[in-house]
Amino acid sequence: MSVKNVSCPVEATMEVIAGRWKILIIHQLLEDTKRFNQLQRELGGITHRTLAKQLREMEERGLIKRKDYQEIPPRVEYSLTSLGRSLERVLLAMHAWGEYYGRIASRKK
Amino acid sequence: MSVKNVSCPVEATMEVIAGRWKILIIHQLLEDTKRFNQLQRELGGITHRTLAKQLREMEERGLIKRKDYQEIPPRVEYSLTSLGRSLERVLLAMHAWGEYYGRIASRKK
Repeated sequence: MSVKNVSCPVEATMEVIAGRWKILIIHQLLEDTKRFNQLQRELGGITHRTLAKQLREMEERGLIKRKDYQEIPPRVEYSLTSLGRSLERVLLAMHAWGEYYGRIASRKK
Repeated sequence: MSVKNVSCPVEATMEVIAGRWKILIIHQLLEDTKRFNQLQRELGGITHRTLAKQLREMEERGLIKRKDYQEIPPRVEYSLTSLGRSLERVLLAMHAWGEYYGRIASRKK
């Protein structure tokens, strides 16, 4: 596989996972279906508002499914669609490179 | 390979390739060593100032090498280091996913 004319698909991927949170949300949901509060807890540092916005954008793009059980108190669960799950390979490649980069960087210190 | 505790290395990678240009610059330099003007031409739309800034940041991180031939008119060439070249796998994973996403998106229209 060649990387000729890679720009468009790579840019599309960059756009979909841009920012700090989406890739971490995907990582969380690769583990399991999760509720909003659980996600917020595990992504320590994200505000309610930001998490809601990120999840909405990811739902619109078809990466995640939102299931509202219509209960009181509310129970809403988030899970990956097959499209969202297919990002796992990108995550793994980024993970492998990040580890390699970390080793190089720590050797330089 | 598991994606448990993926957050730190993945975040590190995201940080290194963040933004619109760096990944496209790496793509260009995977093809060959290139001069500044050549890069600017092939990345249609990037300003001189932005390209210079991106290249400087990538050089500081050890992704690219800058070779100044000390000639007049100036001849400066940029190439990938082995660290920069090692990002090819990430690019390929992003490329493959971007193509897949493009097919899904066009089917929905």
